[in-house]
Amino acid sequence: MSDRIEGAIQQATAYAHAHREAYLAGFKEFLQIPSISTDPAYQPEVQRAADWVVSEMNRIGLKNCRAIPSQGHPVVYGEWLEAGEDKPTVLVYAHYDVQPVDPLELWQTPPFEPTLRDGRLYARGVVDDKVGVFVNLKAFESIFETAGRLPVNIKIFFEGEEESGSPSMAAFIAQHKELFTADLLLISDGGSRPDQPLIMSSVRGIVDGEVLVSGPRHDLHSGQFGGIVHNPLHLVGKMIAALHDEAGRVQIPGFYDQVRPLPPEQREQLQAMEATASVYLQEMSGVEKFWGVPEYSLLERATAQPTCEVNGIYGGYQGRGSKTIIPASGGFKVTMRLVADQDPVDIARKFSDFINSFAVETLKIKGWTENGSWPAQLLTEGPAIEALQQAFEAVWGKRATLYRQGGSVPVIGMFQRELALPTTTLGYGVGENIHAPNEYLILDHFYRGIDTAIHFFNYVARIK
Amino acid sequence: MSDRIEGAIQQATAYAHAHREAYLAGFKEFLQIPSISTDPAYQPEVQRAADWVVSEMNRIGLKNCRAIPSQGHPVVYGEWLEAGEDKPTVLVYAHYDVQPVDPLELWQTPPFEPTLRDGRLYARGVVDDKVGVFVNLKAFESIFETAGRLPVNIKIFFEGEEESGSPSMAAFIAQHKELFTADLLLISDGGSRPDQPLIMSSVRGIVDGEVLVSGPRHDLHSGQFGGIVHNPLHLVGKMIAALHDEAGRVQIPGFYDQVRPLPPEQREQLQAMEATASVYLQEMSGVEKFWGVPEYSLLERATAQPTCEVNGIYGGYQGRGSKTIIPASGGFKVTMRLVADQDPVDIARKFSDFINSFAVETLKIKGWTENGSWPAQLLTEGPAIEALQQAFEAVWGKRATLYRQGGSVPVIGMFQRELALPTTTLGYGVGENIHAPNEYLILDHFYRGIDTAIHFFNYVARIK
Repeated sequence: MSDRIEGAIQQATAYAHAHREAYLAGFKEFLQIPSISTDPAYQPEVQRAADWVVSEMNRIGLKNCRAIPSQGHPVVYGEWLEAGEDKPTVLVYAHYDVQPVDPLELWQTPPFEPTLRDGRLYARGVVDDKVGVFVNLKAFESIFETAGRLPVNIKIFFEGEEESGSPSMAAFIAQHKELFTADLLLISDGGSRPDQPLIMSSVRGIVDGEVLVSGPRHDLHSGQFGGIVHNPLHLVGKMIAALHDEAGRVQIPGFYDQVRPLPPEQREQLQAMEATASVYLQEMSGVEKFWGVPEYSLLERATAQPTCEVNGIYGGYQGRGSKTIIPASGGFKVTMRLVADQDPVDIARKFSDFINSFAVETLKIKGWTENGSWPAQLLTEGPAIEALQQAFEAVWGKRATLYRQGGSVPVIGMFQRELALPTTTLGYGVGENIHAPNEYLILDHFYRGIDTAIHFFNYVARIK
Repeated sequence: MSDRIEGAIQQATAYAHAHREAYLAGFKEFLQIPSISTDPAYQPEVQRAADWVVSEMNRIGLKNCRAIPSQGHPVVYGEWLEAGEDKPTVLVYAHYDVQPVDPLELWQTPPFEPTLRDGRLYARGVVDDKVGVFVNLKAFESIFETAGRLPVNIKIFFEGEEESGSPSMAAFIAQHKELFTADLLLISDGGSRPDQPLIMSSVRGIVDGEVLVSGPRHDLHSGQFGGIVHNPLHLVGKMIAALHDEAGRVQIPGFYDQVRPLPPEQREQLQAMEATASVYLQEMSGVEKFWGVPEYSLLERATAQPTCEVNGIYGGYQGRGSKTIIPASGGFKVTMRLVADQDPVDIARKFSDFINSFAVETLKIKGWTENGSWPAQLLTEGPAIEALQQAFEAVWGKRATLYRQGGSVPVIGMFQRELALPTTTLGYGVGENIHAPNEYLILDHFYRGIDTAIHFFNYVARIK
C-alpha cells in the first residue's frame, strides 16, 4: 500500500512539475482580481473572485461547487466524497479575499499586477491567502489528472471575508453546520519560513474596536475657540495614552483576568526559539530594538499574551502645511488579540466600559466593537500531524516546527465551537509583507507547496 | 471743512450705492480664484489672484501697482501719495489668500462658486479675507470717481500667505522697510458682529508645530508584531495626552513663564462682555458646554491666555472597516497661540524640548516648528480710533467695541518690530465659518463696509 501511495505521489508531482508554467499563469490570473473584502466598493470584485474559483473547481473535477451567499461575502464550497467511507473527510479552509493596498505609493509594482522579480512573485494577497486557495486546487488537479480520483474525501470552504474579520462566518457555519462535518479541518492560511516548515499549535482571538469623539458642529478657528472649546483630538490622545502603561501592559480594567498562564514547558519552548526568531522578526520589521512587557519573552508576548494595538488615527487637517482649526471630530481604530481563555464578548464589553469611562460633558464619545473571534488550540500530535510531518520530510527534507500563531484565524474558533473539529494547518505562504506594501511569495515555494499538498493528501488517507 | 468732508462722503457713498451690482459682480469674480496659499499645488492660483488685484488697482487709479515677489507668495503693492505732506499716510493691509477647503463634502455649494442664499454670500475666503482687499478697493474707487483724488496718502500691502502663517513676510518687510513707512497701519482682516462693530486691541502670536513618530520600516501585521514592536501611534497618543492637564492647562515646561498677567481693569472688561459673548460663541460653534482652565473667564481664555491646540492627527488605516496593522508612522499638527510677552522663538524651543523629552530607543521622533509670530498690542485711543468711531457712528449708528483678538495676524508684529507703526483695524468680515465649510459673508455688510471705509478714509485725513 505504501508503494502504491508513493507511486501515486510520484505521478501527481511529476504532472505538477510538467505544468508549472500553466499553473503559474492561472495563479497570476487569480491574483489580478482585487478581492478586498473590507471595503464595500470592492464587493463586485470579491464576488468575481468567488466565481472565478468556483469555475476553476468545476474544471478540476470537484463536485457541487458553488459560491454560497452569506450575510457578507460568499463562501466557496465544493466537495469530492467518492473516496469511500473508510477514508477520512478533510475540510480544507483558505480565504480568497485580500487586505486593502494603501499606502499605494509604496508599492514598487501595482498590487494587482502580479510581478516576478528575483524569484519573488509580488502581488496583494499572493501570500495571504490566495496561495492557500490555489495550491490546494493545483494539488487536487495534479492528483485527478494522474489518479483519476482523490485519496481522501474533500470538502472545500474558501472564505471571502477573513481580512474584514469574518463578520458573517459564525452565523454561516451555524446555519450550514451539517454541510461541514468532517474528520479534520485543514487550515491553509499562514505559512512557513523559507528554511523551516511550520505547523500552528494555537491562534489568538481578536476584537476590533473603533472610537469616534465629536465636539463642535463643524471645524472651528483655533484662534477664536482655542482654550474654550474642548478639542476632540485631545481626548483621543488621552484615550490612546491610557490604553497602555509605560512598559506596554494593556490598562483596560480586567483585560488580563481570563488569561491562562502558559505551562512552564511551553514557555521554555518559546524561550528556546527566541534567538532564531528574534533575528527573523528584526529582518522582517526593520526594527532595531523590540519593545513590550518585560516579564515575558519576545515570543511569549507575540503569541501567548494578549495585545491591544492602535491601527489608525484620524481627525482634523492632514495635508501639507498647517490649518488652524479645532476639528469637529477625530477617532482611532484598535485591534485586540486574545489568548486562551479570553472571551471576545467579555473583552469587547471591557473595551466599551473603558472608553465610556472617559465620558465628559464637553464632548461626545461613540465607541463600538465588532468581529470578535475566539482564541483556539490546534492539534499538536496524532496521525494528522504525522501525515503532515511525513509530507514535509519528503518535500522539505525536514520536519515542521509547531508554533503559536500571534495572528487570528476567526473560523477556527467558529468551527471548533460548532463542530468540535480537530484542526491543523498546512499553510503555503512563504514570503513577506503580508498586510503591507510589496507583499510577495517566494516562487519556489509555490511549486514546493503543491508537492507538499500532494504528499499530505495521500498520507492523510491512512489516518482513519 | 467738515461740510466739505461730509459732501465728499455723500458723493462717494452715493456712487457706491449706484454701482452695487457691478461691485458685487467684481467681488464674485475675485472669489472664484482658489488662492489657497498653504498648498503648493495652488501656487499658480495665488499668483493669479495677485495679478487680478494689481490689474484692478491700476484700473481704479492707484499708482506703482505691482505684485512684488517674496520668498513665498507675492505681496501686492500700490500707492497714491498725492494727498500732500500735511495728510497722513495710511498703510492698508489685507490678505488675498484663503484657507484650504476640506472637508469639501460638507460644503453646500462649491467653495469657489460664490453663491447667494438668504442674503448671505457663500465662498471660501469671502470673509477671511478677500472682503478686506475688495472693500478697500471699492471705497477708493468710489472716492476717485467722485472726488478725483483720495483724502489721504495710501500705501497698499495685500499679503498672499497669511493663511499659511506668513513664512516669508518678516524677511520681506525687513527688506522693503522704506517702502512701507507710514503714519498708521490699518489692518482689514477680521470683522464685526452683525449688530456691533469691533476694533481689535490685541492679537495673539502663533507657533505651528508638527511631530512625526516613525517605527518599523513599513506597516506590520498587528497579529505578528503586536506586543513586540513599539507602535508609533501609541507614542503619538502619549504626547498629545501630555500636552494638557485635565483642566486644559498647557503642560509644556515653561510655557506660561512669560505670560504678562492681564491688568485688573481689562480682566473686568472681559468679564463684563462674558454673557453676550458666551451666547454668540455657543451659536457659532454648536457647543453646549465650554471648556478650559477654570481660573480664567471665557473671554480671557479665548483672547488673553495662550493655547496649544492639536489641529490634526494622522497615521495608519483610516478607511472603512478595519486593517490589522502596526503602522510605520504617525503624527500630529499643533498650533500654539501666544500672548504678551511670550516670544515665538522661545516657545518653539520649549515645544521642541517637550517633544524630545519623549525620546525612546524603540521609535524615532521628528518634531519641527515654523511660522512663529509675535503677539501685539494695537491702538486703544487717539485720533485714529476717533476717526474709526465716527465712521461707525455714521454708518452703523453706534460706536465700536474694542476687543482682544484670539487669532493671529502675524504681520502686525512684523511691522511693529521693523517700523513701530501705530496700528488699528477696520475689518469688513461680518459673517461666519471662517476656516470651515460654508464660509459666508452677510451681503448687506459688504455694502456697509464700503460706506464705512469711505467715511473712515475721509475722517482720518484730519489726524495729522
